[in-house]
Amino acid sequence: MIEHTAVQRQFPSGMACLRCDVGLPIADDDGGCPACAAEGHAANLRLVFSDAAPGRIVLPSADAVSLGEGGTPQVEAPDLAADAGLGRLSLKLEWCNPTGSHKDRMSAPLMARARERSAPLVVGASSGNAGLSLAAYAARAGLPSEIVTTPSMPAGARRAIRTHGARLVEVPDGAARWRHVGRRVAEGAFAATNYRMPAIGTNPFGIAGYKVLAVEIAAHGLPDLVVVPCARGDLLSGLLLGFLELGRGVPCLVAAEPFPRLARVLAGADYRESFPGRTAQLSIGGDTVTFQALHALRESRGRAVVADDAAARAAQARLGRAGFHAELSAAAAFAALVALGADGALAGRHAVAVLTGSGAGAMDRDETAATAQTPPFDHRGTR
Amino acid sequence: MIEHTAVQRQFPSGMACLRCDVGLPIADDDGGCPACAAEGHAANLRLVFSDAAPGRIVLPSADAVSLGEGGTPQVEAPDLAADAGLGRLSLKLEWCNPTGSHKDRMSAPLMARARERSAPLVVGASSGNAGLSLAAYAARAGLPSEIVTTPSMPAGARRAIRTHGARLVEVPDGAARWRHVGRRVAEGAFAATNYRMPAIGTNPFGIAGYKVLAVEIAAHGLPDLVVVPCARGDLLSGLLLGFLELGRGVPCLVAAEPFPRLARVLAGADYRESFPGRTAQLSIGGDTVTFQALHALRESRGRAVVADDAAARAAQARLGRAGFHAELSAAAAFAALVALGADGALAGRHAVAVLTGSGAGAMDRDETAATAQTPPFDHRGTR
Ligand SMILES: [Zn+2]
Ligand SMILES: [Zn+2]
Repeated sequence: MIEHTAVQRQFPSGMACLRCDVGLPIADDDGGCPACAAEGHAANLRLVFSDAAPGRIVLPSADAVSLGEGGTPQVEAPDLAADAGLGRLSLKLEWCNPTGSHKDRMSAPLMARARERSAPLVVGASSGNAGLSLAAYAARAGLPSEIVTTPSMPAGARRAIRTHGARLVEVPDGAARWRHVGRRVAEGAFAATNYRMPAIGTNPFGIAGYKVLAVEIAAHGLPDLVVVPCARGDLLSGLLLGFLELGRGVPCLVAAEPFPRLARVLAGADYRESFPGRTAQLSIGGDTVTFQALHALRESRGRAVVADDAAARAAQARLGRAGFHAELSAAAAFAALVALGADGALAGRHAVAVLTGSGAGAMDRDETAATAQTPPFDHRGTR
Repeated sequence: MIEHTAVQRQFPSGMACLRCDVGLPIADDDGGCPACAAEGHAANLRLVFSDAAPGRIVLPSADAVSLGEGGTPQVEAPDLAADAGLGRLSLKLEWCNPTGSHKDRMSAPLMARARERSAPLVVGASSGNAGLSLAAYAARAGLPSEIVTTPSMPAGARRAIRTHGARLVEVPDGAARWRHVGRRVAEGAFAATNYRMPAIGTNPFGIAGYKVLAVEIAAHGLPDLVVVPCARGDLLSGLLLGFLELGRGVPCLVAAEPFPRLARVLAGADYRESFPGRTAQLSIGGDTVTFQALHALRESRGRAVVADDAAARAAQARLGRAGFHAELSAAAAFAALVALGADGALAGRHAVAVLTGSGAGAMDRDETAATAQTPPFDHRGTR
């Protein structure tokens, strides 16, 4: 864990809605903004800090739970920059986090919050990096954990999760996974991932952890674009909050997605619809879009770019020949840049691609074999 | 890549023998000290820097080749310290390096040297982390590479190596692997691992990379002990050189090994003998001992501690429940501490355990299934 001078710690004074900005007291209700929910527009909250200093970001204090996350390498890749027609491309190697992905940045403050709440159980829905990260950080915090997965989870990831003493529960699909988490929460468990439908995103205490990534990126010079693989937009939202708090400007945030979801919403579709699709990019599958993802793109004048599996595989191969072994969904971030830059639109620009997970890690092992299918279902009204 | 203020860069003025201290010009002969070899005592060389400043370590300059190695987390583990009867235990998470192991610290200066020599091919003998690291860094340096492996290499590691465009050559066993590297070197290739028999160790340009690890450890307070998983002693030797150059004192260096090799040499056996044994700790198998490993233990008043597979598995499970997923050979470092501290011998001491690779990484995946067997053979005189 790198302690940056631009990072301070204090307990939040409250929460606020990303959509309507209403102020609310601190809670872990996971339902997002009640006012927006009443209107049928699920939206996540953010933490509010009364005493934030300009030029700094604030993390929720509490006793820190850390395995040494953050401070990952940012590496220049001039050859790859040329491929995308960029002036400069920096790769942020998030797989250098303790459990091998960016999720550790979220798990750290989230498990600190769970411990502060004396959670009897931490429960999370994940078939990938988040599950492994949560299991490890729950172990570090001394909290029992249950990871709810689907048959698509690679065998290596299952072994890794069990190493941390977590209980692994398998259910048939993503919808059943969220229902299972909901039941555990009703029994008193602390939710460490989204489980609501329509999807909202993760507890704001967790998302705050991603603000540090914005600090680290800005320390190398504020880029024009930051590209991240995107599903429910936790990372995207945390980056936006971090850049806003830092106050040095907000790069254009680009969401790489395996099939059109955010892209359709930006083109006019309702974000609460279901956007089914198939992909081998297990870390960013699923048929949902969240308000927080949409919000991050709007506030940063950002874009959603589809990088399908073929494009992601080509990007993975290109990255590999340059020395970087990204998991397929992380390679999609580079694929998105290549697509964006095809017409010379990125000439002279500086982009940071956030490579969220490694291709040599536990999660990617079976990706070539497995393809997660997301069946369409109606989100609204169901729990 | 963290640039430490305690690290400077300059081209070495020469080399010197670890055993007889004779000075030699810069070369990449891989044969170690010719004077000692003539006496039948193979010993590695070290780089000499004419202009070293006290309190600093010096890395061979050249154009740096980097994927962002170093600056890995050092995490306090009070519960695990208690298990080993230590006053303080810090875990150095070397799996947070770009390709998932400490080997990246060595690959970086080694590939810089290979590029400086305009090597037509980089060749290395490895069925584990070193092979993956070399493949990635050779790709970063723009050099073709060939990794020579045995059937024990996990499938995931093979895929990862091929991702970087490296050629993978499989031979029946460790001895054949070194012979193959020797043939390639005769054809003009740059050797990135040991291949001589008796074993000497890796090119001193590579070993110099480990000096930075000593700087990072010392930055958290000079510990009493540093424990590392050990096979041919590259890491051990680099740590010794780093602590000596820093000039703030040398911790007791402890080599964790899966069956008695260095332990037998310290008890009186000739280091040039063969010490056969079986282990599932793939990263530190093999039947050889090197002079450089012995030298590091002697100069640091260190120890060799056997952590057999059962002890390593117990340590791996204990680390996992604390949030750390170490590969079996890395867990052996903690097992060695538990063994050392059993009689209260470590009360009040501060140890750093270097966790060289992750249990969730490509290398450990099949470790539970595979057990590398090292057949005994006579080293002397063979190539
Ligand atoms: Zn609202
Ligand atoms: Zn000599």
